[in-house]
Amino acid sequence: MTAAETGLDPSRLRIDPRRLLARLDLLAEIGAIEGTTGCSRLAFTDADRQGRDLVVTWMRDLGLDVTIDGIGNGVGRWVPDGVDPALAPVMTGSHIDTVATGGRYDGNLGVLAGLEVIETVMGAGVVPPRPLAVAFFANEEGSRFAPDMMGSLVYVGGMALEEALAVEGADGAVVGAELDRIGYRGSAPCPGLTPHAFVELHIEQGPVLEREGARIGVVEGVQGISWTEVTIEGQSNHAGTTPMAMRHDAGFAAARIATAVRDLATELGPPQVATVGAIDLHPNLVNVVAARAVLTVDLRNTDDEVLARAEKRLTAELDALADAEGVAISTRSLARFEPVHFDPAVVDLVESTAAGLGLSTRRLPSGAGHDAQMLARVCPTAMIFTPSRDGISHNPDEHTDPEDLAAGADVLLQVILRLAEG
Amino acid sequence: MTAAETGLDPSRLRIDPRRLLARLDLLAEIGAIEGTTGCSRLAFTDADRQGRDLVVTWMRDLGLDVTIDGIGNGVGRWVPDGVDPALAPVMTGSHIDTVATGGRYDGNLGVLAGLEVIETVMGAGVVPPRPLAVAFFANEEGSRFAPDMMGSLVYVGGMALEEALAVEGADGAVVGAELDRIGYRGSAPCPGLTPHAFVELHIEQGPVLEREGARIGVVEGVQGISWTEVTIEGQSNHAGTTPMAMRHDAGFAAARIATAVRDLATELGPPQVATVGAIDLHPNLVNVVAARAVLTVDLRNTDDEVLARAEKRLTAELDALADAEGVAISTRSLARFEPVHFDPAVVDLVESTAAGLGLSTRRLPSGAGHDAQMLARVCPTAMIFTPSRDGISHNPDEHTDPEDLAAGADVLLQVILRLAEG
Repeated sequence: MTAAETGLDPSRLRIDPRRLLARLDLLAEIGAIEGTTGCSRLAFTDADRQGRDLVVTWMRDLGLDVTIDGIGNGVGRWVPDGVDPALAPVMTGSHIDTVATGGRYDGNLGVLAGLEVIETVMGAGVVPPRPLAVAFFANEEGSRFAPDMMGSLVYVGGMALEEALAVEGADGAVVGAELDRIGYRGSAPCPGLTPHAFVELHIEQGPVLEREGARIGVVEGVQGISWTEVTIEGQSNHAGTTPMAMRHDAGFAAARIATAVRDLATELGPPQVATVGAIDLHPNLVNVVAARAVLTVDLRNTDDEVLARAEKRLTAELDALADAEGVAISTRSLARFEPVHFDPAVVDLVESTAAGLGLSTRRLPSGAGHDAQMLARVCPTAMIFTPSRDGISHNPDEHTDPEDLAAGADVLLQVILRLAEG
Repeated sequence: MTAAETGLDPSRLRIDPRRLLARLDLLAEIGAIEGTTGCSRLAFTDADRQGRDLVVTWMRDLGLDVTIDGIGNGVGRWVPDGVDPALAPVMTGSHIDTVATGGRYDGNLGVLAGLEVIETVMGAGVVPPRPLAVAFFANEEGSRFAPDMMGSLVYVGGMALEEALAVEGADGAVVGAELDRIGYRGSAPCPGLTPHAFVELHIEQGPVLEREGARIGVVEGVQGISWTEVTIEGQSNHAGTTPMAMRHDAGFAAARIATAVRDLATELGPPQVATVGAIDLHPNLVNVVAARAVLTVDLRNTDDEVLARAEKRLTAELDALADAEGVAISTRSLARFEPVHFDPAVVDLVESTAAGLGLSTRRLPSGAGHDAQMLARVCPTAMIFTPSRDGISHNPDEHTDPEDLAAGADVLLQVILRLAEG
């Protein structure tokens, strides 16, 4: 590592918090939810396009080589003068799509902090010994098109590009057509370039760091995720004239599943979490017994065996309920990811780097899915968390203190420089 | 009563089944649900307007004096030559609006059988001693605008016209504006003309008559109805990172209410019925703990004391749940009608008339709300039921055998003629 022009010790480099915050503010203006500090930029919508346009502009302004691949992942690569462009880059990044009523930091922080790190290194005249890259991965949230982390999954070869392009969303739109529409179906190949290493900065989206007073979360891995769509076919009937014993009530069955899912989490105990976040009844009228219900079940655990046990219990509940209520119940897997364990050496590096910067740390698993878990399939990977106020995320009230944002980005900067030496 | 020209004994008059069925078929073509024999004509929609236009045309073709009142109720009155127009008419009728995915008989039978009865009496040259009238009451179903039975409620003075006109529907439309739009905000006054007596023919919409092999239901009264809209405010959060113990999950609370409503009906026992037919979650996404839920609770019982007990139990459940889950729960009454007991003399008349026609009968309460229960506030009233196959209603599969439709209309004819003598 050299800092030819300035002679600066790279370990003393710090990012510019005002520049990072200014970019976060500008990106948050796109899809801003009025009266809140939150954002709505569902994947492949017009708002997503505008967000992408802004980030790509910033990448190009920095002189990065920007490529867009077939699923819409964007990668900005910096090959410093004198560095062999054939060397695999150290990559960072995250995503810039949001849930329908999301916050301004989820994903966006990791992308803009990556940009900030590269700008800081460039500006200091520091020349890392291999290329650096920052990526925004497509459709991380999965709110509109399943599965979540679609872009990074395709990037690492875990899902065929054609399969991803054919996915139909909740609103009937199709991924490939939406990418064409917003102009982000690129020509860079999938799977993409394998990085030398990958590290992602992200807000915790949970309450642990704040509750324990830790500034930096050292993320050891990611919970396994199981998403199931459950469809119940009952019989529509008059709510006043049909005796209770003669009902085949899809709405009641949906409700029973949601309470069984809660019971399941309570009985398996932490870290098992289980959520029914979406329920749709048909015809959804006050005086009609519902003929049909569709709901989603989200199960997560760091232990794949316990997660599989949760899935089995759900299946048993559905079978028993179908018999008891006289309804037909079918299921469709929307996503299934095993728990991920990050690279121990990179995890240690995050921990020692944060400590070296005088920041308190806490090792923890991630409760949410992240692009880093996909990159972990192909290269040494870890994540850095910063605290989330009240643990709130996927909500316009999502907030992380500016000092914590800057601290996370400083850790990212130093970890990237150390990884580039390897 | 005279049958001056024909000398026919009025007690031998029978309706023309083919004419009745032909009208039922023609009306069912409007808003027909493809691939079924069902109908979709929600109140004050374009389909409802087309249905109204057709029925008004038939009324005018028969020479009836047609009036439309301020809430869109239509009344076709026949004042035979020589009969004092100031005499209160014997009225029959029902409604022609349907639920979103309804059948072709619910309501429509009562209106078209009324038309058929008048046409039959006219055609036979029989002159009843007082006017006869057939009405279609607006927005009986209440699927789009609460409360149900809105038109008949306004007709009898149970709800102020201005209040009804200002009701905003589930889709944001307003009753008055929709009536203007479809051209059915008429000038006849509300409350309307008080009938001498009222009798309504309707399908049972339940399984009792079919199960017991009775051709004619002698309806003694109507269950009390309590409709409540429940709104739950929780906290939107990430489904992966929020420990179960820290959740304020509006979706779970909604599900818990729906299962509690089922438990309540089971424990109170028949004839208590209880239904959660509509649930809406927000943001309704797989990976987001729901911030907000709105659901409806439909409670019915023939015994007002038990119904009130059911309501109290619901309230207690909501209070306990709000505490346990840390959510705010508010309620709004969408409708509350006490059980109705029909006029014993008219009920007896229905029973004896059916028996006189050789038809098997069964006394029963109505599980559904009907316009007749509103008319019962102002004049002697009863209802006649015909069987529903498998008890199915509020469903395109709703079916009543043609012979049963004709038998019900014949009972209606004879009951009306007898009531006109009073």
